Amino acid sequence: MHTEQKLNMTMLCDFYELTMGNGYFQTGLRNRITYFDVFFRDVPDKGGFAICAGLDQLIDYILDLHFDEEDIAYLRGRNLFSEEFLDYLRDFRFTGDIWAIPEGTPIFPQEPVITVRAPAIQAQLIETFTLLAINHQSLIATKANRIVRAAQGRTVLEFGSRRAQGTDGAISGARAAYIGGCAGTACTISDQLYGVPAGGTMAHAWVQMFDSQYDAFEAYCKLYPHNATLLVDTYNTLRSGVPDAIRAFDAVLKPLGIQTCGIRLDSGDIAYLTQKARKMLDDAGWTGCRISASNSLDEYIIRDLLIQGAQIDLFGVGERMITASSQPVFGGVYKLVAVEDGTGTVIPKIKVSENVDKITNPHYKKVYRIFDKSTGKAEADYITIWDEMVDETQSLELFDPRATWKRKTYTDFTVKPLQQRIFQGGKLVYRRPSLQETQAYCKEQVETLWDEVKRFENPHTYYVDLSQRLWDVKQALLRESK
Amino acid sequence: MHTEQKLNMTMLCDFYELTMGNGYFQTGLRNRITYFDVFFRDVPDKGGFAICAGLDQLIDYILDLHFDEEDIAYLRGRNLFSEEFLDYLRDFRFTGDIWAIPEGTPIFPQEPVITVRAPAIQAQLIETFTLLAINHQSLIATKANRIVRAAQGRTVLEFGSRRAQGTDGAISGARAAYIGGCAGTACTISDQLYGVPAGGTMAHAWVQMFDSQYDAFEAYCKLYPHNATLLVDTYNTLRSGVPDAIRAFDAVLKPLGIQTCGIRLDSGDIAYLTQKARKMLDDAGWTGCRISASNSLDEYIIRDLLIQGAQIDLFGVGERMITASSQPVFGGVYKLVAVEDGTGTVIPKIKVSENVDKITNPHYKKVYRIFDKSTGKAEADYITIWDEMVDETQSLELFDPRATWKRKTYTDFTVKPLQQRIFQGGKLVYRRPSLQETQAYCKEQVETLWDEVKRFENPHTYYVDLSQRLWDVKQALLRESK
Repeated sequence: MHTEQKLNMTMLCDFYELTMGNGYFQTGLRNRITYFDVFFRDVPDKGGFAICAGLDQLIDYILDLHFDEEDIAYLRGRNLFSEEFLDYLRDFRFTGDIWAIPEGTPIFPQEPVITVRAPAIQAQLIETFTLLAINHQSLIATKANRIVRAAQGRTVLEFGSRRAQGTDGAISGARAAYIGGCAGTACTISDQLYGVPAGGTMAHAWVQMFDSQYDAFEAYCKLYPHNATLLVDTYNTLRSGVPDAIRAFDAVLKPLGIQTCGIRLDSGDIAYLTQKARKMLDDAGWTGCRISASNSLDEYIIRDLLIQGAQIDLFGVGERMITASSQPVFGGVYKLVAVEDGTGTVIPKIKVSENVDKITNPHYKKVYRIFDKSTGKAEADYITIWDEMVDETQSLELFDPRATWKRKTYTDFTVKPLQQRIFQGGKLVYRRPSLQETQAYCKEQVETLWDEVKRFENPHTYYVDLSQRLWDVKQALLRESK
Repeated sequence: MHTEQKLNMTMLCDFYELTMGNGYFQTGLRNRITYFDVFFRDVPDKGGFAICAGLDQLIDYILDLHFDEEDIAYLRGRNLFSEEFLDYLRDFRFTGDIWAIPEGTPIFPQEPVITVRAPAIQAQLIETFTLLAINHQSLIATKANRIVRAAQGRTVLEFGSRRAQGTDGAISGARAAYIGGCAGTACTISDQLYGVPAGGTMAHAWVQMFDSQYDAFEAYCKLYPHNATLLVDTYNTLRSGVPDAIRAFDAVLKPLGIQTCGIRLDSGDIAYLTQKARKMLDDAGWTGCRISASNSLDEYIIRDLLIQGAQIDLFGVGERMITASSQPVFGGVYKLVAVEDGTGTVIPKIKVSENVDKITNPHYKKVYRIFDKSTGKAEADYITIWDEMVDETQSLELFDPRATWKRKTYTDFTVKPLQQRIFQGGKLVYRRPSLQETQAYCKEQVETLWDEVKRFENPHTYYVDLSQRLWDVKQALLRESK
């Protein structure tokens, strides 16, 4: 590892952000203050909620946002950009404001996860990286959270580096999986960089390298008596794998008084084999031996294994988590929602579409979460114009923005603004929590959701409603656009 | 961009590679020469072949393989590794041999794409990165090649950075897409780093920033008269988008004598809208205006659009290519196939499995491609033991290794060894082709495949056969394992 791991990703932008930037510069729009929202439209895997992540990467990126001389030389070579613009890029920094929902928070479609307020060129330039960071990290955190919930308290580890989509997919993917609830990873560098606990013991090759499976197991137990998890499926799990493991535990660990150890299965009928293996281990007195399984797992397979009575203490989950293979895209978008005129007045903007679900929520906004005071459960999210306050001492009537006659009144509630201010005038004003804090926060926040929202199949649709004022603005803009 | 972009990824390994490495070191196996193959079992999307990529990343990684002091300090802190091993890591370098099928080559299940011959610790340590690089790059190159073939000669650009799985997913993903046949990317930094041509013009926000759509278009044409592709679907494609574009082309481009320009559609019924738009443009004399489309495209949608008569010159493909979303995992594995004894004799190793398809092909091997001399078409791949030669002057009988009575004799053929030597004794001995050369090579090699192998649905299964000697070795090892 080098200490300069955190690369300058300023040039990780879509090229059109530069052509537009130059255009804003040349047409006098460069200092026009703009507001962009990041939001998403559908929860992956038809789930009831997603887990927000990626803010930490976004912060690093914003702090380091600048063009090097070689970047400017590259851009000059494209013969598209004015010298004045290239000169301007030399001192380019982010000077705007960013609000964000903290990492680990359950989030829902249509609500602003990130809001950027900045001069047009800046706000436009950060579009791609902002989306990339939020989309990737939220995708994996959401998938990991599903898998962890399926495991019902058993340990889940991230094992997918070899199938990840690129190096960062592996490295920061393990980080997102940890936020979602994984206890650790196989990816060593993720431990170094992010403190995601890394572990692992042996591959089939270890077993094959010795003259016999028993020799391989015995050697491993001698080397790592306190960390001996033996892979028992290289030849035949029940006929030789588990028996050889028990012999090695008896020969090496028992004399040392060590009672905790492990076996791992990476193939075969896991439900059947783990039950048989559990019995063999228990009969031999190795009740402290934990059983790990790691073959093409995801939340559905884990749920089924547990229903079938599989005896598994620890799940190693690979490709299906690190790529979120069942739905490998988190569809966050970055849309202009407002501009300021010369006097600082905020002018809402809307993007219309034939597809009603693709019409944006205009304006500079706030988003609140309503909790039932007696149960502590999250009841609804409530999106307002930026200057609206919610008074907890009054009742609050919410309505479904797509079916406005569906109304519900909340009386005994508490309310929490979801977004926090991250950057103010280009300065970081947010205390970045540790990854451990974020993981704990995620767990705690997921617990505020009703079980109906957490179902894998046909979850209850959580309410995300607009305030009357915001709804009125949206309708007026829609009428205007016709 | 920083010049130190190419990070040391030595610590991007699964932790078990380190525990095994320490184990090999302590048990006297550290200098045991081992042979590992990278191969895959299934072509993504039930296709007939995959495109091999990732070798270039692997070469960079191997050249830079070393542990920094901070890595060693981290490992020491884990209290698992002997001081002798940590000391050994200080001078750790790759000293082995690597053979690989060049990037851009069509590859098939079960054949060795990469072969590593190295002391056990080294060969084991590089497992994760080797797989990650080959799996990711081959995944995207394969998907891109499908999409490019669906476009039947029309231009395909990679637009997916914002939905990529991590920064490297975007950056090197664009590189793999280029190998597969994309003409360029939206990702600026991929151009800087790899020379993948980057381009782009405007987002919806550009249109929304001006007082009117026409103002936005006119301003853009004035700024970039030779690069004016206007996004026409912000409000209404046919009622205002295309008409405003034509007005802007007439007002700005026509007086300059410019006849090439473009419009882009990112929503709506692309087949219908592009046919209408084409007619409007042609009627207005803008026959040189190219039409781009870019909404949730993949090989199937593109094929359907063309069947429906869509008038599209250029496809911008996003999330479905950069994540290979229909099947986002390339399942390359890394398996021990042989070891050397003290005298340098190669001893084949096999990994058995209840699942017949998961039984490995043992031994240090070669893989040949058989071409029909008259058609130039690839007929079969032929895997042999390393010291077998194929004599083109003799007839060659091949048989299906899973149905040995199915035999075919080739007489008029040429034969090409697929793997090239990349590293010899730790030294790079391979001339790395440019990315442009690799793209051209890929195109040429895909053309050697029969159309039946290139079908999206139910492709013909290309023959990958074992030599008689290799088959005999495999059978003997299987019998021995029982």
